[in-house]
Amino acid sequence: MNPSAPQPRPPDRTDRTDRWETLDTPALLVDLDRLEHNIGRMAGLARDAGLALRPHFKAHKSVAIARRQLDAGATGMTVAKLDEAEVLADAGVPDVLLAYELVTPDKIQRALGLGRRTRLSVAVDDPLGVAALSAAASAAGVEMDVVIEIDSGLHRCGVLPVDAPALGLRIAQATGLRLAGVFTHGGHAYSAADEGELQTAAADEAGSVVDAAARLREAGVEVNAVSVGSTPTAALSAMLVRRPEFAGLTELRPGNYVFHDGIQVSLGVATAQDCALSVAATVISRPTADRAVIDCGSKTLGLDRGAHATARLEHFGEVVGMPARLARLSEEHGVLALPPELALAVGDRVRILPNHACTVSNLGRAFYGIRDARVVEELTIDAAGGVH
Amino acid sequence: MNPSAPQPRPPDRTDRTDRWETLDTPALLVDLDRLEHNIGRMAGLARDAGLALRPHFKAHKSVAIARRQLDAGATGMTVAKLDEAEVLADAGVPDVLLAYELVTPDKIQRALGLGRRTRLSVAVDDPLGVAALSAAASAAGVEMDVVIEIDSGLHRCGVLPVDAPALGLRIAQATGLRLAGVFTHGGHAYSAADEGELQTAAADEAGSVVDAAARLREAGVEVNAVSVGSTPTAALSAMLVRRPEFAGLTELRPGNYVFHDGIQVSLGVATAQDCALSVAATVISRPTADRAVIDCGSKTLGLDRGAHATARLEHFGEVVGMPARLARLSEEHGVLALPPELALAVGDRVRILPNHACTVSNLGRAFYGIRDARVVEELTIDAAGGVH
Repeated sequence: MNPSAPQPRPPDRTDRTDRWETLDTPALLVDLDRLEHNIGRMAGLARDAGLALRPHFKAHKSVAIARRQLDAGATGMTVAKLDEAEVLADAGVPDVLLAYELVTPDKIQRALGLGRRTRLSVAVDDPLGVAALSAAASAAGVEMDVVIEIDSGLHRCGVLPVDAPALGLRIAQATGLRLAGVFTHGGHAYSAADEGELQTAAADEAGSVVDAAARLREAGVEVNAVSVGSTPTAALSAMLVRRPEFAGLTELRPGNYVFHDGIQVSLGVATAQDCALSVAATVISRPTADRAVIDCGSKTLGLDRGAHATARLEHFGEVVGMPARLARLSEEHGVLALPPELALAVGDRVRILPNHACTVSNLGRAFYGIRDARVVEELTIDAAGGVH
Repeated sequence: MNPSAPQPRPPDRTDRTDRWETLDTPALLVDLDRLEHNIGRMAGLARDAGLALRPHFKAHKSVAIARRQLDAGATGMTVAKLDEAEVLADAGVPDVLLAYELVTPDKIQRALGLGRRTRLSVAVDDPLGVAALSAAASAAGVEMDVVIEIDSGLHRCGVLPVDAPALGLRIAQATGLRLAGVFTHGGHAYSAADEGELQTAAADEAGSVVDAAARLREAGVEVNAVSVGSTPTAALSAMLVRRPEFAGLTELRPGNYVFHDGIQVSLGVATAQDCALSVAATVISRPTADRAVIDCGSKTLGLDRGAHATARLEHFGEVVGMPARLARLSEEHGVLALPPELALAVGDRVRILPNHACTVSNLGRAFYGIRDARVVEELTIDAAGGVH
C-alpha cells in the first residue's frame, strides 16, 4: 500500500448501547445475527458437502469477521491483494490463498516475506509469472506454493483447462516452486439471467477445475486443491460435488455471502432479509415533495449496479422499509425518489441496502455491529483501501 | 470520520528520481507541469474576470495541491465534508466554504469547533437546518456564517431563487447566524450534449444565484458572496460575468480542473493533453491475443462513466498512448481489449487516464508527482476516504 494518509479524527470508542439512529452518518451497519447466520449456513453447507471453505476476505476486509469465519470452520482465507494478506498474517491467520497473479519483483519479495509468517499460495497463469516467482524463490532459497488459475468462463485471468498441463509441467520443472492446486472464479455467474443459467455457470466453474486437475494428473503433475469460488455458485457447487463427474472438487471460496447485497438478491441467491450490511444515512435536504437528499453518495456506496461492472440493477441501492428508490448518486449525495405523501424530514435517518457490499466495505473504515437495532460492537475494516 | 483502520505498511519515503515505471502499482501519477498549468490557467481566468476563486478540495483532497492553488491566488477552499474542512484547518487554510448542509447535532458541534480555527461558512437550504444551526450557535455564544444553496438545474439540494428570500429572512431573524451569501453547483452541465447546452447550463447557474441575490436584497437581506462552481462552466461563467445581467457574480468554485479527466474530455472542456492525473498499472495476465489484464479495477479507478452517475462514456478509462480500451473492470482487475498485433507482456506497465479524477483521488493514499516521466515528489492525499 502507498504511504498512508493521516486519518481524520475518529470519534471516541466507547462501549455503545445506543440505537443505530444515534450514529454519525454515513455509518456502515452490520446486523450481527444475520452475519452469524450467513457464516454458519455457508460453513455447514461446505462441511456437509465434504469441502474445505476458504472465504474471500475482500468482501469485508475485517479481521473481526474473518475470525468468526475461521471459528465456524473455515480452513483459511482467500485474498486478492498483498495488503489484505499482510493484515491476515498480522492477525495470525495461518493459511492464505492470494488468488491474484504476482509478476513484479517488489510484490514477489513481499510475498516471500509473508511466506515466512503464514502458509501462502500465490496464483499463476503465465510462463513469465512462473519464471519470475521461480527466480525469486530460488534466490531466497525457499519453496513457494503456487496455484494455477483456470478460466472457467469469466474470461478475465487464467488458462483454459487444456492449457493447464503445459503450465503445470513448467512449474514442476522450475526450482523453488511447488504446485499446490488449481482454482477458478466463476464470476460469469453474475450475468446469469435465471436459475438455469446460474446452474450452467456453476457447472462450468466446477467442471473446469476438475477437468484441469485430471489433465494435470494425466501429465504426471500432482494436484491437491481443486477450488471454486463465488457466492452465487457456492450452494450449487456443494450439490454438484456429489455427482461423479465433479467428485474431485475440494474447496469453496465465496466471499460476499457474509453480507449478501442487492446484487445477490437480484440473482435470487439471497433475500433482502438475508442481507447483513446496510448504510445508515441522514436526510440533509428535502427540496420537493418527491425528492429527499441523503448524506451518502458514490464515495460511500460505490456506483456498482452489478458485479464485474455489469448493470443488472436499475438503481443504486434499496431504501430499507420505505417506498423510496435511490435514484441518483453524486459523490457525497444520494437522491431519493419518494411518493409525495411520505413523511421524511431533514434530520431523519434512513438505511440503504447497498447493491455491492464489497465496495462499501472497501470505502469504509469500520462496521457498527447491531443487534435489535442497538449498536453493540465496532468492527474495524482493517484492509480498507488496501489495493497493493 | 469513523475509527481509522491501521494502514498497511507504507514503503520508505525516499527522494525518488526513478521513472514512473519503477513504482509499485496501482500508482496515482500527477504530471506536475500540467497540474501547475491547469492551476495557473484557472487562477488567471478568475483574476481577469474579477472573480474570487475558491477551488473544491474534493477533487484531490491533498493539502500539497491546495497550497499550490492558494499560492496561485485562490482566496479559500470549498469542501463537501467536515473531514476535508478539518484537514484544511489543520494545514492553516484560513477560509473554507462547506458547501454541504449540516443538520445533525454532532456535525454542527464539529463545525463550531472548526469555526474557532478557520473562517467557515456552512450551507443551508431548509428551515429545519436554520433552526438547528441557530440553536447550536446561540448556545455556544458565537455567530456562524451560513450560505444559502440555490438549485440552478441539477435538482439535488438547494432552494429555487424565488424561495431564497423566505429562507434569507429566517436566517436574518435567527440568533447566532449571519448570511454570508448564496451559492450553487451547476452540475447539470455534465449532461450537456453540446457546446450550446453547456452555455445554457452556465447561464442557468450564474443566472440563478444572481437572481437569488437580487431577490434577497429586495427583501432587505444583505448578500455578499454570489458563487457558482463547476469545471465545465467555469470559463463560461468568467465570460458571462462581463454581461450586465450576470454582473453580481463574485466567485468561482471549480474543482476537477486541477487534473481534468475523461469526463471533461468527453465534454470538450479539456483535451487528453490537459489531463494531469493518470494511474500506472501492471499487466498481470495475458490470456488471449486480444486481452490483457491489469492490476487495477473499480477499487482504484471507480466505476464512473459520467458525473452524477450518468453514463456519458462507454469504457472505464483510456489507455495512454496505446490502441487499447479498458473494456471491463472487476474490483481489482481491469480488462484491456487489444488489437492482436499489440506487443504487451506480463510485467509491462501501462497508464490509464481515468474517467473521473475525484473518485481516483478518494480511493488513493498518495499521488506521485512526475516531470518528464520521472518521479520527483510524493503528495499525500490527506482526506482520502473522509466522507463525514
